[in-house]
Amino acid sequence: MKPLSSYSKEELTAFKNELDKKYSDYKSMNLKLDMSRGKPGKDQLDLSNELLFIFKNSNDFYASDGFDCRNYGQLEGIPEARELFSQLLEVAPSKIIIGGNSSLNMMFDAIARAMTNGVLNSEKPWGKYDKIKFLCPVPGYDRHFSICQHFGIEMINIKMNQDGPDMDMVEKLVSEDDTIKGIWCVPMYSNPEGKTYSNEVVRRFANLKPKALDFKIFWDNAYAFHHLSDEKDSVLNIIDECEKAGNPDIVFEFASTSKISFPGGGIAAIVASDNNINEIKKQLFVQTIGPDKLNQLRHVKYFGDANGVYEHMKKHAEILKPKFEIVLNALSCELDGLEIASYNNPRGGYFISLDVPEGCAKRTVQLAKEAGVVLTGAGATFPYGKDPLDRNIRIAPTFPPVNELEMAMNLLCLCLKIAALEKCLSM
Amino acid sequence: MKPLSSYSKEELTAFKNELDKKYSDYKSMNLKLDMSRGKPGKDQLDLSNELLFIFKNSNDFYASDGFDCRNYGQLEGIPEARELFSQLLEVAPSKIIIGGNSSLNMMFDAIARAMTNGVLNSEKPWGKYDKIKFLCPVPGYDRHFSICQHFGIEMINIKMNQDGPDMDMVEKLVSEDDTIKGIWCVPMYSNPEGKTYSNEVVRRFANLKPKALDFKIFWDNAYAFHHLSDEKDSVLNIIDECEKAGNPDIVFEFASTSKISFPGGGIAAIVASDNNINEIKKQLFVQTIGPDKLNQLRHVKYFGDANGVYEHMKKHAEILKPKFEIVLNALSCELDGLEIASYNNPRGGYFISLDVPEGCAKRTVQLAKEAGVVLTGAGATFPYGKDPLDRNIRIAPTFPPVNELEMAMNLLCLCLKIAALEKCLSM
Repeated sequence: MKPLSSYSKEELTAFKNELDKKYSDYKSMNLKLDMSRGKPGKDQLDLSNELLFIFKNSNDFYASDGFDCRNYGQLEGIPEARELFSQLLEVAPSKIIIGGNSSLNMMFDAIARAMTNGVLNSEKPWGKYDKIKFLCPVPGYDRHFSICQHFGIEMINIKMNQDGPDMDMVEKLVSEDDTIKGIWCVPMYSNPEGKTYSNEVVRRFANLKPKALDFKIFWDNAYAFHHLSDEKDSVLNIIDECEKAGNPDIVFEFASTSKISFPGGGIAAIVASDNNINEIKKQLFVQTIGPDKLNQLRHVKYFGDANGVYEHMKKHAEILKPKFEIVLNALSCELDGLEIASYNNPRGGYFISLDVPEGCAKRTVQLAKEAGVVLTGAGATFPYGKDPLDRNIRIAPTFPPVNELEMAMNLLCLCLKIAALEKCLSM
Repeated sequence: MKPLSSYSKEELTAFKNELDKKYSDYKSMNLKLDMSRGKPGKDQLDLSNELLFIFKNSNDFYASDGFDCRNYGQLEGIPEARELFSQLLEVAPSKIIIGGNSSLNMMFDAIARAMTNGVLNSEKPWGKYDKIKFLCPVPGYDRHFSICQHFGIEMINIKMNQDGPDMDMVEKLVSEDDTIKGIWCVPMYSNPEGKTYSNEVVRRFANLKPKALDFKIFWDNAYAFHHLSDEKDSVLNIIDECEKAGNPDIVFEFASTSKISFPGGGIAAIVASDNNINEIKKQLFVQTIGPDKLNQLRHVKYFGDANGVYEHMKKHAEILKPKFEIVLNALSCELDGLEIASYNNPRGGYFISLDVPEGCAKRTVQLAKEAGVVLTGAGATFPYGKDPLDRNIRIAPTFPPVNELEMAMNLLCLCLKIAALEKCLSM
């Protein structure tokens, strides 16, 4: 295939007519396919079913310290669940609080607490400012941005380089403006680009000198163990690096088993310095008497230790790797040479990020939707749902079964070509 | 026994010497007993163990609408869990959101949302006022008061009558002051007094005409099914009454299975008008992708329907009734006639509230503590931990085994008599 930009008007029209025909064939199939969210598929969920049968008798409800997990208490989670995350994230158990089923909820709550009561070293609650701001590496995770929007936090786009956010820009902004209170980071297999922060980027984060003494890095380590094969990325331990930099309190790290065990029935964690954890516990004590410790216990009994988790993640990879290959093959077969798409080939995570010609993302997603394939909304990967160039599409290959995924990808490529042709023809 | 007030100085001294001797005998026993919190005992937890073994095979994880409870979604809870609470609370399922394991957490979150974003009809978020206030019927639940204190909400004590809060005072205050934004209510078997609101009180609540258009009644229906025998209290349906009064949006009701199934592993609910529920869901959507639906499913599979819950609660009553009798017998045998104590005889709930001579509550609790029996801190049942008359002690008989409870009660009565004698002798 030759670049679309080199097509003559006649060639463009002929190509478009051909594709319109194909598109109308798809439409007549009345498809109903969903590639919109980073949800594990049924086969992935089945991997962990045994976790739900793990209690065998009534002696099974006690934590290692003898605590009855059925009753109230243990605000910070049971010791063995903290130990499991301690092994996984290589952080002392005392720096970890295990919560309920959602790390998103823990992130939301962390910001809610900051809004109403402030964090360590806050002069006043964040909600008492006329305006505060967060830095948002883009493209990024829509639900991070929704949290900011919900709390009226102004978002500033930060360019993502191949090895993480543009740190020159981050350093400059945080050093100048004390109303910049935080930044969202997905340091490994980032959502949606699958990029992993380099050692230099992590160290520059750890060494930030923000004007705001209560600036926090929200380190959403959502995909730390979510490799697609033995070729793995790795990221420096942010808690360690911040400590080494004499900046231990600057970061909140988050993780969960949502995409290890069950998205609706996993366990989540917040990780931070001892000072931060003490501060959080004071506030958490008012919010709840304790998390669901039985589910924490199920997870520890099922996985045993970090190695149990690593082995388990290989089974996820076996299911996901072929799905990612379907997406990449479709993109390559259908689009290579046309020069209307660029995309990443991540070694892990949940997404493939597709960049299309400027002004074509919305139209592509709309065409796909009209033919029965729901994609993540165009723009969703940017604050306020506004992709300034209208060019990023997030592909979430995990949820549809393989045959549906193939169909959906072929349609997506078709829609993109039509959108690009429409653009060429209108110029 | 004759009233302590009628004792001569010599009699008082002799009595005190006798009791001091007994007290020092207790002290030498090195007791370690805990009557401080409303925690179910181990035998109560064992009643629901089967719930934790309820999943038998991999077809068991689907909700009635086919939804895979292991995955993301179902923000408002699964249909059958909403249906179960609908039967229990006699409210349409659409007015119910089922959350995680803690109704306290849902109350905290409801106020947190109000602080940062306001509720229906808020002119501005509650956090944007210099000062807002809540009404607090006293004595009441310490954790309600902690939430207010955490958010800097000023608390105003409201006298509890036999049939609920002093509604003359409530009506007067809310009609005059638009910075009064809420009131805490435990309408049935109130914490700690075990009182149940009369129909008149409920209707006066439903017909409140607060000056603040965003005033909310926080209706913590924590003990709605927690009868001690077949002699049951009942309370009018607040959701219905508010609707009838043309005041549907004024109330948030809360309930949970914490003291039905497991305190650490139950499910909780918020109940409100359709308008409120829509408003809450909008905010909840930002906070989480969904609750732990597997645990909701376990509960429905285990209890079946409301009748299943009612039958189950009879088993709790069989365990709790004797414990309440031990407390009441001890109080009666040890204190009747001395005129130094008044206490309730509730038909349900988790507490017995003991009023002692003014200025004697703290001293009694301290004496008990020094002899190895931990009681709820004196003052805890009042905002800011300050009992203005220092006379209320909350007795929580559920957690200790029967033999320990007898011992603890005997010691408590002894400590109270000593405290009262000290007071008489110092006058």
